[in-house]
Amino acid sequence: MVAVAIQMNENAAGHTRVAMVMDTIRQRVAGRSLTPGAKLPSVRALAGTLKVSISTVVDAYERLVAEGAILSRPGSGFYVANQAAPFALAEVGPKLDRAIDPFWVSRQSLEAGDADLKPGCGWLPPSWLPEEGVRRALRTLSRAGGSALTDYGSPLGLPLLRQLIARRMAERGIEASPDQVMLTESGTQAIDLLCRFLLEPGDTVLVDDPCYFNFHALLRAHRAKIIGVPYTPSGPDIEAFARTVAEHRPRLYITNSGIHNPTGATLSPVVAHRILKLADQFDLTIIEDDIFADLEHTAAPRLAAFDGLDRVIHIGSFSKTLSASARCGFVAAKPQWIDGLTDLKIATSFGGGRMTAELVLNVLGDGGYRKHLEVVRHRLSVAMREVSAKLKNLGVTPWLEPQAGMFLWCQLPDGVDAANVARAALEKRIVMAPGNAFSLSQSATSFMRFNVSQTLDPRIFEVLREVLAGRAN
Amino acid sequence: MVAVAIQMNENAAGHTRVAMVMDTIRQRVAGRSLTPGAKLPSVRALAGTLKVSISTVVDAYERLVAEGAILSRPGSGFYVANQAAPFALAEVGPKLDRAIDPFWVSRQSLEAGDADLKPGCGWLPPSWLPEEGVRRALRTLSRAGGSALTDYGSPLGLPLLRQLIARRMAERGIEASPDQVMLTESGTQAIDLLCRFLLEPGDTVLVDDPCYFNFHALLRAHRAKIIGVPYTPSGPDIEAFARTVAEHRPRLYITNSGIHNPTGATLSPVVAHRILKLADQFDLTIIEDDIFADLEHTAAPRLAAFDGLDRVIHIGSFSKTLSASARCGFVAAKPQWIDGLTDLKIATSFGGGRMTAELVLNVLGDGGYRKHLEVVRHRLSVAMREVSAKLKNLGVTPWLEPQAGMFLWCQLPDGVDAANVARAALEKRIVMAPGNAFSLSQSATSFMRFNVSQTLDPRIFEVLREVLAGRAN
Repeated sequence: MVAVAIQMNENAAGHTRVAMVMDTIRQRVAGRSLTPGAKLPSVRALAGTLKVSISTVVDAYERLVAEGAILSRPGSGFYVANQAAPFALAEVGPKLDRAIDPFWVSRQSLEAGDADLKPGCGWLPPSWLPEEGVRRALRTLSRAGGSALTDYGSPLGLPLLRQLIARRMAERGIEASPDQVMLTESGTQAIDLLCRFLLEPGDTVLVDDPCYFNFHALLRAHRAKIIGVPYTPSGPDIEAFARTVAEHRPRLYITNSGIHNPTGATLSPVVAHRILKLADQFDLTIIEDDIFADLEHTAAPRLAAFDGLDRVIHIGSFSKTLSASARCGFVAAKPQWIDGLTDLKIATSFGGGRMTAELVLNVLGDGGYRKHLEVVRHRLSVAMREVSAKLKNLGVTPWLEPQAGMFLWCQLPDGVDAANVARAALEKRIVMAPGNAFSLSQSATSFMRFNVSQTLDPRIFEVLREVLAGRAN
Repeated sequence: MVAVAIQMNENAAGHTRVAMVMDTIRQRVAGRSLTPGAKLPSVRALAGTLKVSISTVVDAYERLVAEGAILSRPGSGFYVANQAAPFALAEVGPKLDRAIDPFWVSRQSLEAGDADLKPGCGWLPPSWLPEEGVRRALRTLSRAGGSALTDYGSPLGLPLLRQLIARRMAERGIEASPDQVMLTESGTQAIDLLCRFLLEPGDTVLVDDPCYFNFHALLRAHRAKIIGVPYTPSGPDIEAFARTVAEHRPRLYITNSGIHNPTGATLSPVVAHRILKLADQFDLTIIEDDIFADLEHTAAPRLAAFDGLDRVIHIGSFSKTLSASARCGFVAAKPQWIDGLTDLKIATSFGGGRMTAELVLNVLGDGGYRKHLEVVRHRLSVAMREVSAKLKNLGVTPWLEPQAGMFLWCQLPDGVDAANVARAALEKRIVMAPGNAFSLSQSATSFMRFNVSQTLDPRIFEVLREVLAGRAN
């Protein structure tokens, strides 16, 4: 098992081959898989990888040299110029040209207009979120003391919210004092701070294959070496996991254990226990990203619950069930780590978002929130059944029937490339989530992640039927 | 001029010498000037630097080995253990023990209770901020459309706020289209993203000496080599600046040009022009941190206005004049950089804080905000005169009389060490900002930064008089 660079897809419609090669390089630079000063792949190697002729690559490299984006060192090869600038340019342009890279789903989903359909996005529609609770909390906040409205928060973040988070974690069997909880601006920022705290450039990090695409993007920003382990319906393939940690000695493993993104799978207690034994044996730290926790009907095993926050760091946020507009996440970790993490948080974002923490506290403290969660879980179950049935009708087969959550990880009919389906759907203003955006090994070519709460519009199935009938491949 | 590691102060009261050496190492690890696996200074070198005996250092190193914090490799030396964990532990403890490092002022200020006085902190008291405007904006927001309350923001951030920011920049002579403006969670996050985008570990970055202490903390988190250039009342010492860029070829220069932190100085047009010429000559990128802009009576020269966002990146936030509780900042940069920055923002913090952007837009759009700024500027002028006079009475001499802003950079009477004054004041629950927290060369031993808006309580002058009478040195 080796780290596999995320491959750019070769078939970007309407591009000449030369432009495609140029874009591939620009994207790798923008995504930092090629950093300034780094040597580019040899002409021959890239031609092989991208299945184009050598002269196409030569032509593309020469144009990039002319643009100042790369340098030619005769006798040595081509190198990324030290100015990061010229590369980002390539990112500006028609969205349809974006490669299926770790940013594909996030950019398309976040940039989509209100009229666009987003079965590929990773969150609930606004109408499924506790809008009234948020309105009430805003009105309450408008009457709060002045410092809540205008002053910086304390370094760890709002004490009452940290207490509440500790209590909520205890309900899932994870024991932590409020002083072990540090608020962040989001779950993503929590992982980012942990990577800064724990990783050196070049350190190896283990992820699930498939996993949440943004783990790839984030780890690349930290210059980590990423290794994937195949995911099974009960957690990572534990034999592959054991071999990989023994061989590569990763510093970190990042995973979702409650409801796995993108598969919707649930970690089994047996696998959880074996992961923790291996973590002990090979001195591995685990980040357990638990942002879907509130969508579970019954709590799945948590690594942090078994481990007691020794090797496991637990993170969460409220973006998926309360509001993604009010940014607020948290880290729960062993006491010795909290102060260093706090310094890093101050250095890189100064005071936390006190106002959004006050807002989240208000909504969580409101009796309506638990009721809201029950309704959302029920709606998700109903949508899961409905969407699953409709997809099966089109020959699109769920990999498993998830116990909870919004994700349905599906295999397309034989021979169909999900990236092509996603591009065809995007022309009809439907944002989909093709499998390889989640897969480090690029082995999920024929998979697609559906968010059942965003897949209820009949137009999605019409377009999918059309595209599949055209056998986009 | 060479990069000088930030020295930990040797006189931490109540510490034995051995404990002091141990803390020095722990702080360097926590602050990442020593990273896991790095070799520690030799016993002899550290003894020389810290002016303690060799046996003191030997004793300290042995205890750190026993704790598992460092490893001894016989014949080779001492190395930081690969677990970052044991080090942060040292940070937990009485606040009085904190070294005067880049985190001193921020941690003490952010951790201070409501009853504590904070002449050293870097922001206005809540009662000086537009509380009523924020309350009105919260009520307006409570009636907004659902997606403003619960959905992610677009990748660049709220379009109307970006338009407004572009218009406000134009008033200061900086031309930028709204598409060149990307919202961030704070000014600090803006600089952090730019460092990720532009720097490789080991790159050299130029800062003013003195400068905002958090620039040091942030750059250390990026593993940059930091070099300081002395600051004069009209900007950086331009001869030193010229020599330094020629010798060290820094990748970046980070500065405040409007109102300089901590000195309150204003950049002169002549110096601005020379900086930009040198930047051109030596391919230097400049980050201009303009978060105090709204406190100016008349706009000082801006590097971004002269340069047109070519080599200069302009950043700002609303924490100093609108609310520090609602986090919202921005980057304005050349169009080619925006898309790469946006990808990095998504990778490391996903969607921006839409709700706080909506709130800021509301307050800025409210006619009351300009009126509020006029009042704040007037109050600051009055406070500046009053505090300056009272400090002079105590023999504390302003380095210059700032044209605007909240900061007064002052020299203490002969022979007095500001770190000792700050520690003595902290025992009386007064948070001060000793000069060396801002100085890379540690040459501001006898300076202190006062925030005039937070220095109006007579108790501050009583305590200062007492402490100075005791000749804390």
